[in-house]
Amino acid sequence: MIELEVTDVTATCCAPLVRETLSPEDAERLAHTMKALADPTRLRLLSIVAASEGAEACVCDLIEPVGLSQPTVSHHLKVLTEAGFLTRSKRGTWAYFALVPGALDRISDVLVSK
Amino acid sequence: MIELEVTDVTATCCAPLVRETLSPEDAERLAHTMKALADPTRLRLLSIVAASEGAEACVCDLIEPVGLSQPTVSHHLKVLTEAGFLTRSKRGTWAYFALVPGALDRISDVLVSK
Repeated sequence: MIELEVTDVTATCCAPLVRETLSPEDAERLAHTMKALADPTRLRLLSIVAASEGAEACVCDLIEPVGLSQPTVSHHLKVLTEAGFLTRSKRGTWAYFALVPGALDRISDVLVSK
Repeated sequence: MIELEVTDVTATCCAPLVRETLSPEDAERLAHTMKALADPTRLRLLSIVAASEGAEACVCDLIEPVGLSQPTVSHHLKVLTEAGFLTRSKRGTWAYFALVPGALDRISDVLVSK
């Protein structure tokens, strides 16, 4: 199993929006992460992976549900991986994608006002 | 005080991502909302409004902190208003923007996995 390096931009960001004003640097970082989520196909892919057993799915099982070509699906998965939401590992022929524990929660915590 | 009509796309969206697979329709709606948040200036404006007293701020107090022209700031505030995060009201010369209670929490709830 080969684990590829990822840039986890969700790791360092931020205090809740409603509690204190975001710094320009945090706003840049958070906007970059939000861009990864601002696409319907990526949201569905993330949701399918997250709702799968063990929060992991083979790319071979992700193509049919979203109805797009493998290169397009792979591109979207790469964006989600680079944004720190997924990790990618290769086993045999196929790549497997797993949800990074806590990555979505960190974004959720920034938005929460409760 | 005149309240302008807004399209609250955050009102109807969605079960948590990790619990069940997003439908294509919910993914479209959520991606549209995320796009409003996927910009550093809009995140800062939202944060400044949210962290202000009464979660409300005059547009006249939002221009200097983000260092952009009034038309640009007004454009970003319009995007946030149309996405259902802010309401706009006019008093005298100035427009005031207030955080919509619960709007950020609804997005936060979709992302949470805890």
